[in-house]
Amino acid sequence: MSSEIKEVKVIQQQQKKERKPKQKAPKVDKEGTKIDTRKRLDKEGNFPEWYSQIVVQSGLIEYYDISGCYILKPSAYGIWENIQHFMDTRIKKMGVENAYFPCFVSQATLKKEEDELNGFTPEVAWVTKSGQSDLQEPIALRPTSETIIYPAFKNWISGHRDLPIKVNQWCNVVRWEFSHPYPFIRTREFLWQEGHTAFATQIEAEKECHQILELYASVYEDLLAVPVIRGKKSKGETFPGAYYSLTVECIIPTNGRSVQAATSHHLGQTFSKLFQIEFEDEDNKKQLVWQNSWGLSTRSIGVTIMTHGDNKGIIVPPRAAQKQVVIITLHHKGSPNDEMDAKAEELTQILLDNGIRAFADTNEMHKPGWKFSEYEMRGIPIRIELGPRDYEGKKVVIVRRDNGTKSESTWEDLIQNIKKTIDEMHHDMYEKALKARDAHLIKISTWNEFMDSLDKRCSCLAPWCEGEECEKSIKTRSATESIERAKSQSDKEQAILTGSAKVLCIPLKQDSLPEGAVCFQCGKKATTYGCFGRSY
Amino acid sequence: MSSEIKEVKVIQQQQKKERKPKQKAPKVDKEGTKIDTRKRLDKEGNFPEWYSQIVVQSGLIEYYDISGCYILKPSAYGIWENIQHFMDTRIKKMGVENAYFPCFVSQATLKKEEDELNGFTPEVAWVTKSGQSDLQEPIALRPTSETIIYPAFKNWISGHRDLPIKVNQWCNVVRWEFSHPYPFIRTREFLWQEGHTAFATQIEAEKECHQILELYASVYEDLLAVPVIRGKKSKGETFPGAYYSLTVECIIPTNGRSVQAATSHHLGQTFSKLFQIEFEDEDNKKQLVWQNSWGLSTRSIGVTIMTHGDNKGIIVPPRAAQKQVVIITLHHKGSPNDEMDAKAEELTQILLDNGIRAFADTNEMHKPGWKFSEYEMRGIPIRIELGPRDYEGKKVVIVRRDNGTKSESTWEDLIQNIKKTIDEMHHDMYEKALKARDAHLIKISTWNEFMDSLDKRCSCLAPWCEGEECEKSIKTRSATESIERAKSQSDKEQAILTGSAKVLCIPLKQDSLPEGAVCFQCGKKATTYGCFGRSY
Repeated sequence: MSSEIKEVKVIQQQQKKERKPKQKAPKVDKEGTKIDTRKRLDKEGNFPEWYSQIVVQSGLIEYYDISGCYILKPSAYGIWENIQHFMDTRIKKMGVENAYFPCFVSQATLKKEEDELNGFTPEVAWVTKSGQSDLQEPIALRPTSETIIYPAFKNWISGHRDLPIKVNQWCNVVRWEFSHPYPFIRTREFLWQEGHTAFATQIEAEKECHQILELYASVYEDLLAVPVIRGKKSKGETFPGAYYSLTVECIIPTNGRSVQAATSHHLGQTFSKLFQIEFEDEDNKKQLVWQNSWGLSTRSIGVTIMTHGDNKGIIVPPRAAQKQVVIITLHHKGSPNDEMDAKAEELTQILLDNGIRAFADTNEMHKPGWKFSEYEMRGIPIRIELGPRDYEGKKVVIVRRDNGTKSESTWEDLIQNIKKTIDEMHHDMYEKALKARDAHLIKISTWNEFMDSLDKRCSCLAPWCEGEECEKSIKTRSATESIERAKSQSDKEQAILTGSAKVLCIPLKQDSLPEGAVCFQCGKKATTYGCFGRSY
Repeated sequence: MSSEIKEVKVIQQQQKKERKPKQKAPKVDKEGTKIDTRKRLDKEGNFPEWYSQIVVQSGLIEYYDISGCYILKPSAYGIWENIQHFMDTRIKKMGVENAYFPCFVSQATLKKEEDELNGFTPEVAWVTKSGQSDLQEPIALRPTSETIIYPAFKNWISGHRDLPIKVNQWCNVVRWEFSHPYPFIRTREFLWQEGHTAFATQIEAEKECHQILELYASVYEDLLAVPVIRGKKSKGETFPGAYYSLTVECIIPTNGRSVQAATSHHLGQTFSKLFQIEFEDEDNKKQLVWQNSWGLSTRSIGVTIMTHGDNKGIIVPPRAAQKQVVIITLHHKGSPNDEMDAKAEELTQILLDNGIRAFADTNEMHKPGWKFSEYEMRGIPIRIELGPRDYEGKKVVIVRRDNGTKSESTWEDLIQNIKKTIDEMHHDMYEKALKARDAHLIKISTWNEFMDSLDKRCSCLAPWCEGEECEKSIKTRSATESIERAKSQSDKEQAILTGSAKVLCIPLKQDSLPEGAVCFQCGKKATTYGCFGRSY
């Protein structure tokens, strides 16, 4: 049984368990001490279960009665809104305009693409009825919108002055996948942005394709504190019809698995040929436009949770968090509790007025200890404690979620200290994630080393021939051999993961190959370093 | 043939014509003079055709090859983004959080609602296949999300401290209507926000229901410069399951038809009973929650276009426009054209830096006159002209789209003058629309006066009994009698519209009824003034 299949079972069991019970706050005894009725979290020991548990316990998502569909609760959607804001302001500066295209594709249009490009058909959801009536023709729900948008491009473009065209939409898409669903990472409906652009020249198109890749890297690195590898997809992994696909790949340190985190495709003239998108150039000659398409989805939230979370809960990177700061007053008998609560509300308002997403919890139902665990589980980046002594000294204590460090701040300096803490915490979270990632990304040169590092839950950099046959062999051979390895090592403490590995990308930043380097798999002349591993 | 059916035919013909041809800029002769190949616009003479033409010619929408679906081009989607921003900041201040729920509903859940409430089933689009495989069970696309969201509410709520819950989502919904589609106004897929809230007490719920209505009125009045009537829906027009529905209604002066512009429903305990959404109150007693749902859609863009447009094109209210200002340089031989262009770009940047959505058109391909018409068609609220004399005097000319008035501004005072112009223009557009609306809203007291005013393309205020039978009679009787009237008056210049009229709303702001007032239709005792007319 492959690790993927094992994971499916675990997840399916999780889903059954989690779909029904109410997501309440943990129970407390009479003293207000938390009685933990939740499952113990063990990120290192059982990562798939940790993830399935934590996305629910932290209040990010809720399972839904249609498989592969999840409810994004406000704390998850709030991260998405911050990603949207980050992206949207930057693409608008690049001259991209938002638009909205229908979610339906006619069978005829989809077939046109399908015949040529062998795209998404197996995953397409079809609407065939309205009310009690059959539709004349089935209509597909968009898995992506190339076939919806490019016929419009044909109408919008006639001369070179109509170019470039740069549109983007924020929308839902549907891919009715049969592999096991996984919250955020593989869902049948997901939210994304899809950018679609057309240029007069290939140079301009390729330049943008790389700019967008850099923007995606920035979303991960500068907003989500997640390190990524910028790379190009191998032939076998390129978007159907694209000349090439650029990608940012995240490696999840805990299991060494990679996630394709966002892609920017240079479509070249494939679609302009297919949909006859032509323009008259300055010499009045008809030319086909050069196109890109690029997308980043709610999958990014899953990557972030996987990267940063611990056994206390999720850790939301502070720049992306829906709520960045919680202020908790520490009530004691005989303390000026009402005044402390009023001060907490006042500080909250000051933080809000300064663009910091804060809230106060002055509720008396739970003791501070209960609240601390609760907001740690929810991943609120910064906790501010206001106790009687702090109140007296006109101070607060600032506690970071990522490493628990405490510092004091006067009320006066609170804004600047919180801003500083946000930046430092972001920086430290990124550096920690980078270190962990690098520890799970091993440079190897032989097949055996490759299989060994997979067993150690690592992805690899290896000299590669870039051959299409070799690409296929990597998949089949790693699948077969990992099963054999698992059999012979079943007594080990940490079970060996099985399942096929593949080319994740060819990193854009390349070390130079050693003289006479050969492919780690087939032994032919190596032409590049590739990045290999198991993926989601 | 009813007016609606007539309109269908016109629109269907329009669609056939408009679906194929490219939406290019108008042709120009050698001198750069515009050769108008577009249809002449005649808002007063043929309103349905004017609307169908103008939404395309102005570049707001593009027809799509699936009936009832339209592409929202950037200038339309930009209006939606401004509506979103306006709404979103205000609902967040009310404590509403955004979330995202799946677009799919299982048959079982939908049926549960259907059996009880007789909701949307005839309009529901069903997914029955994925790829080549049949789904085990058909799955519906959301026509609205009560049945999707409220089972989650059940999980989120256990005690009174979990209340209130206030969530909202920005999303697409699908209603596969069989009546004729009409851009923005009646489309099979549309964008909207849907707010869903739950409270411990009815008082809180009802208070919010009215607050939201006032917010919707503000979107129309303060952002879109469209006057609305705040009202309550009659029994026959109330949302299925709601205790009552509040509505803002717009009357389109040109034909006197009303548009239901946004609704806020007080659902009472209907859905909490259906989905068993209970909480323990402070005395540990189980109680059902009190709920509201409220929505505003892209229909609002259609209302705005219908209200303000003229025979030169659309007029986008300045606060809502994607682009608020275009700067056009007036090139002449021997003038410092390059310097003027540079200044135009500089002023554009200054405007952008001050939050005004401006762009410059310094393109030499078209003469200024061509550009003037083009941007008038596109409804850009403010045109800034920069000619040689203006340049010399360090000035510009500001031209308003709504009334063509011109004023001068020095470069130094530009920001404040543009801000002033935006506010004045908004105010004047609203006042003009209100005057036109009031001229098409007549107070009457007899059935004959009612039919007469429908013939004059007006909606009416009339004393009404609020009886359910009477409500039905108004529909049937107005349909029959308008056909008779049309027959007997076929020689008149402006053809009488036919089709049934109905109760639009019961205005919240009521004049006191005269002593002994009777219902305009059935003669029973009148209990209120109702608003009546034909609607979209």
